[in-house]
Amino acid sequence: MNVMKKVALFLGLLVWVSPAFAAEGEHPKLILTQDGVEQIRAALGTVPLFDATLEAVTAEVDAEIDLGIDTPVPQDYSGGYTHERHKRNFFMLQKAGVLYQILEDERYARYVRDMLFQYEAMYKDLPLHPKTRSYARGKLFWQCLNDANWLVYASQAYDTIYEFLSAEERAALEENLFRPFADHISVDNPQFFNRVHNHSTWGTAAVGMIGLVMGDDELVERALYGLPPELFDADARDDDGGFIYDRDGKAGFLANLETPFSPDGYYTEGPYYQRYAMSPFLLFAQGLHNVKPELNIFERRNGVLLKAVDALLNLSDADGEFFPLNDGQKGMSYHAREVVSAVDIAYLVGGRDPRLLSIAEEQGQVLLDDAGIAVALGVRDGKAKPFDKKSVNFADGPRGDQGGVAVLRYGNEDLTLVYKYSAQGLSHGHYDKLSFSLYERGDEVLQDYGLARFVNIEQKGGGNYLAENTSWAKQTIAHNTITQNETSHFEGKYEIGSRHHSELWFYESSDDDVRVISAVESNAYPGTTLLRTMAIIRDESFEKPYVLDILKVVAGEENQYDLPFYFMGQVLDVNFDYELPSMLAALGGDNGYQHLYLEGRGAPGEDTTKLSWLAYNRFYTLTTATQATDELLFTRIGANDPAFNLRRDAAFMIRRKEASDTVFATIVESHGNYSPVTELSVNSRSSIAALKVVHDDADYTAVSIEDLDGDTNLFIVANSDASTSTRHELDIGGSVYEWSGPFCYAVRD
Amino acid sequence: MNVMKKVALFLGLLVWVSPAFAAEGEHPKLILTQDGVEQIRAALGTVPLFDATLEAVTAEVDAEIDLGIDTPVPQDYSGGYTHERHKRNFFMLQKAGVLYQILEDERYARYVRDMLFQYEAMYKDLPLHPKTRSYARGKLFWQCLNDANWLVYASQAYDTIYEFLSAEERAALEENLFRPFADHISVDNPQFFNRVHNHSTWGTAAVGMIGLVMGDDELVERALYGLPPELFDADARDDDGGFIYDRDGKAGFLANLETPFSPDGYYTEGPYYQRYAMSPFLLFAQGLHNVKPELNIFERRNGVLLKAVDALLNLSDADGEFFPLNDGQKGMSYHAREVVSAVDIAYLVGGRDPRLLSIAEEQGQVLLDDAGIAVALGVRDGKAKPFDKKSVNFADGPRGDQGGVAVLRYGNEDLTLVYKYSAQGLSHGHYDKLSFSLYERGDEVLQDYGLARFVNIEQKGGGNYLAENTSWAKQTIAHNTITQNETSHFEGKYEIGSRHHSELWFYESSDDDVRVISAVESNAYPGTTLLRTMAIIRDESFEKPYVLDILKVVAGEENQYDLPFYFMGQVLDVNFDYELPSMLAALGGDNGYQHLYLEGRGAPGEDTTKLSWLAYNRFYTLTTATQATDELLFTRIGANDPAFNLRRDAAFMIRRKEASDTVFATIVESHGNYSPVTELSVNSRSSIAALKVVHDDADYTAVSIEDLDGDTNLFIVANSDASTSTRHELDIGGSVYEWSGPFCYAVRD
Repeated sequence: MNVMKKVALFLGLLVWVSPAFAAEGEHPKLILTQDGVEQIRAALGTVPLFDATLEAVTAEVDAEIDLGIDTPVPQDYSGGYTHERHKRNFFMLQKAGVLYQILEDERYARYVRDMLFQYEAMYKDLPLHPKTRSYARGKLFWQCLNDANWLVYASQAYDTIYEFLSAEERAALEENLFRPFADHISVDNPQFFNRVHNHSTWGTAAVGMIGLVMGDDELVERALYGLPPELFDADARDDDGGFIYDRDGKAGFLANLETPFSPDGYYTEGPYYQRYAMSPFLLFAQGLHNVKPELNIFERRNGVLLKAVDALLNLSDADGEFFPLNDGQKGMSYHAREVVSAVDIAYLVGGRDPRLLSIAEEQGQVLLDDAGIAVALGVRDGKAKPFDKKSVNFADGPRGDQGGVAVLRYGNEDLTLVYKYSAQGLSHGHYDKLSFSLYERGDEVLQDYGLARFVNIEQKGGGNYLAENTSWAKQTIAHNTITQNETSHFEGKYEIGSRHHSELWFYESSDDDVRVISAVESNAYPGTTLLRTMAIIRDESFEKPYVLDILKVVAGEENQYDLPFYFMGQVLDVNFDYELPSMLAALGGDNGYQHLYLEGRGAPGEDTTKLSWLAYNRFYTLTTATQATDELLFTRIGANDPAFNLRRDAAFMIRRKEASDTVFATIVESHGNYSPVTELSVNSRSSIAALKVVHDDADYTAVSIEDLDGDTNLFIVANSDASTSTRHELDIGGSVYEWSGPFCYAVRD
Repeated sequence: MNVMKKVALFLGLLVWVSPAFAAEGEHPKLILTQDGVEQIRAALGTVPLFDATLEAVTAEVDAEIDLGIDTPVPQDYSGGYTHERHKRNFFMLQKAGVLYQILEDERYARYVRDMLFQYEAMYKDLPLHPKTRSYARGKLFWQCLNDANWLVYASQAYDTIYEFLSAEERAALEENLFRPFADHISVDNPQFFNRVHNHSTWGTAAVGMIGLVMGDDELVERALYGLPPELFDADARDDDGGFIYDRDGKAGFLANLETPFSPDGYYTEGPYYQRYAMSPFLLFAQGLHNVKPELNIFERRNGVLLKAVDALLNLSDADGEFFPLNDGQKGMSYHAREVVSAVDIAYLVGGRDPRLLSIAEEQGQVLLDDAGIAVALGVRDGKAKPFDKKSVNFADGPRGDQGGVAVLRYGNEDLTLVYKYSAQGLSHGHYDKLSFSLYERGDEVLQDYGLARFVNIEQKGGGNYLAENTSWAKQTIAHNTITQNETSHFEGKYEIGSRHHSELWFYESSDDDVRVISAVESNAYPGTTLLRTMAIIRDESFEKPYVLDILKVVAGEENQYDLPFYFMGQVLDVNFDYELPSMLAALGGDNGYQHLYLEGRGAPGEDTTKLSWLAYNRFYTLTTATQATDELLFTRIGANDPAFNLRRDAAFMIRRKEASDTVFATIVESHGNYSPVTELSVNSRSSIAALKVVHDDADYTAVSIEDLDGDTNLFIVANSDASTSTRHELDIGGSVYEWSGPFCYAVRD
């Protein structure tokens, strides 16, 4: 460190021979442009959102400058000092560079330059990072991914002080730092660089962005199109178990833009990783847009990058937190830094959608660049409009034909149903075909567990994925969907899962009273077909809309089916008898079952089984049509969890043994409320008297829903024809129903 | 109900023969007075807090008037329709009466009159309530307590329309309704009325208030002094297991004012019941203040009623939620209706303390009476001052000599330590001598379980106390204190517990860096003396102040000691090895142990044992000085809980077997933070290197606290002399410490 400090001191003296601030040069041009700088300087002091961010960033960078530059010898995993210090450094580089441009204060340029030269001095002789866990080790960090993060930000910083540096200084940095750095994360590590994966998006963006700043077309080409195919080993796997190389041999940034996004902008890994991946996508795209406008990068695939921003925002709950589909850490939200970037850039280059301004207002910060000033000006000028999240259905897959994810919403996100019938989701995918989760005003009612990881909390496995992510979080039984014979979908095997996807049966969101999503899964269990139809239904007899779930199973042979509901909250009441085991044992030995304690086992007392619980000071009731031989299980997560990595959350599970073709029909109601202050219970009881499967054959499945007034409604799914125009006719108990389209909701008195 | 409706219709016609509004009569005089009415009418429209409450109450009452009056035949426990309807009725009576006075709209007077006459028609022939569970059955409700609630509100309503009624109407109501009603809850039920208990406070207030309105001095006397002693059965018990009659033969409202409140205003049952009891205390007192000012009721016992309001507010966390000492339902807060009353009345009659105005602002509502208008005017005129909660130490017992409750606070309620060394707390008391709980900014860090009850949620045992309240919540092992030989304090027996209390050893809150509470318990286990000293210490080497806990045990023989810490959140890390049982079994068979699962069992790896966890996006570490033979247990609540009545919360338990005299020394740190949005961990590690008991004998116990920089501080407790003036001198490892007073905190480098 002493050597480093000496270098810094030495460089500090160099300021006198540096060229003065060059207003008329070519740089900056990458993200912050000269036009942007002019706009910003003109508007400063009149744009509250921008001014507030500038003030916060200035304070942050000033404090770091006071602290002095430290570029420690790399040593730690994430969470450790050297990792966190280098991570903080690249953010500081980018921020200080921007401050130099905006405030015209050379102190910031010198800080960037001095830090870059400390890295330059260090990088020349830097070996691989000493930690060996990664499939692609970095030099500053334990994995190339983090090195790529560094370069994405450092290239922006370099751009902002480019004109401030002498030609000799630029040559030294490019020759000793930036080019070898770019080479390390690309040619030295094709297994990192040449994938279709969020890692490679960062890698290619990093190489491309420094290429654009340096004016090095070879680097830009390498970034856009990847390395030559002779480097491929088609069967190579990463340490998450995913394939490293695209099976069609595509690589580079443009290939990454092709494959993981569906035409709707859904990112196949899910919103948590989409949030992470959006940054390099949009940053490099903005750089290309500014430096190589002829590529029309934002118009590629009908503007998929901008659609992706919209999709990402729509995949959040009422609090802006992303649905934890696949590997997703709960709590991550559109307040994240990466989404600030995404929203600002999308606003600037995507036709200035005024709904984005209301998200920016909630975020409370903007980028300090062309995009940020555009957003801040829009907000200042009162152009913001609410970002009303509606029901949406996003197709998955590069061509939009690999299933999807639907979000049914009711009211102002009062009720939100997330239904997953997508493709596998690459190496971060979970084995959870036709799973769902349910939210009320941002509170989890029926949860998706998310991942088993404490990101960047070093005490928990270095902040990396825990063993329980594989043994529990990815397994089918960890989700609100069906497990056959205690085995996960696709046997829990990535090679099989990644070859298949569910299929949309139908989606209907135009009716205010009945919104429906239905999908089919035929490959999770060979020989078994699952058709799950879920609806949010508004009915006068109910205080709030309720959720209807009809899961039809067609199987050639007898199986055991387990259908859990991971309810949040405390059990209030059930209408069946159950026994408590004297000791809690694991429910099974494998496939996630080894992590579930069995807390109670019962049998239905009547055809309509009920469980009610209290959560968030609201009452919830699950009503399900059961058979006399069903087992009703209370489970709790936590068995075989030696490091207390799992949350002790509960589920109610319906187990149906020795069944081939069968139907699970369930209703989830939210009703009433409780106040611990007034101690008043309001509407604490379910409004359902009976739920029955009244018809089931190859063509139709029908359930009747009887409310407490004795009124009965009927919901019929057409199992063999999902066309919206087909006319159907069905006799149920002497009443004939006629309708068009894939479902019928009949209100009877 | 049809008959009732006819009565209402008939009474509706009577309006024409009623006297017109009488501005110059004697009534109202009880709570709302004629002076108050004049002030209110003059200020209306200019007092936002009052105007907002008036608007809300008007809307509420108007809606009820539109709904029509219903006085159903009593039938249900709390939570059921008839219970909730009659409860709502008495609130409506009081509110409508007030609206009549303020708005001079006879519609409200007629509503009150008509409802009262429906009750009059019904009450004459009303048998005891059909539910038999109470030791004192009411008529409208299953217990006299709720009947008393009714009369407290109905008497206010009667007062407001007194002048509106004809003399004949008043005679009918008094003869057929109010007097027999008052008799039923007093002379017919001495076991309810003649106690010193919150039930009797309601009973006497009800009888006294209707007596004041009716001008019936006999009723007022009965209320103030109770029934004649020949009715007593000194050994009678209530259904909570408490004694019914005061052992000294005292009864009536004034006796209730004597015994449960300490001179500091601490209510022996704890803040949850204090909140409930304050209403009748203050309402009847305000009535006496207005009608019988010669009693100087608010000056009794040096103004104990006003001190009680202050104490109650101080027994809340940063969110205003009351500490759940003894039987207390979590979530109850100073936003409760009863505390709105208490705060407003205390402001009016207690010298207009401007700190109360800031509480009233938070409450967002005021009483619609003399007190409420005074508060609303004060707030309007900007007189509010912050209610800064400081460290406090409240003595328990009528003479303030039965132990107490201390609250050590640091910063703006950043850290709050609640330490209980009180008397038993009557029938709602828990067996938790020298227990504590810890809060950070209103979040529970180390919890007190509270009660096992879902108040007014009928599905859970009719909303009443659950069996687990006795088998779990009251037991010692459910608390953060020591259990000897797996038996609760006082064998869990009320007769024994209610004869004893802990004793203050010393309390020191004047030093900003070291705040200490220390108390002794000698009776919980005969032959064993417990001296527990807890401190909040600020030290430069630590990011935040930390909690030090030194628990010294002196016993004549060998025992097993269990000391649990009910931490909230998820385990991050420990520095010892432990084993997981293959199946979870209950830790014991009785005294609460039957409700604990053993999740892990370990042994110390070194002298200083550590457990860290994550909660509320903050890091916490517990560091404890262990012995090689200690067992370290991970437990979780939930065994033998057939109706899922208990929360599945965790504890870390230190078990020391075959020990006689011993010391448990523990430090709890809060440090750093985590954001799921930035995914940054800050200061996630403990700052303690070692914690050791370096001296322990009859006179002194000393622990050393070594931080990561190698600096060591020493905390010494004087075990045999708590005088603040005594000089002490102690040689520890060759260093001699000299100090005055009961403890020494020595900073060493």
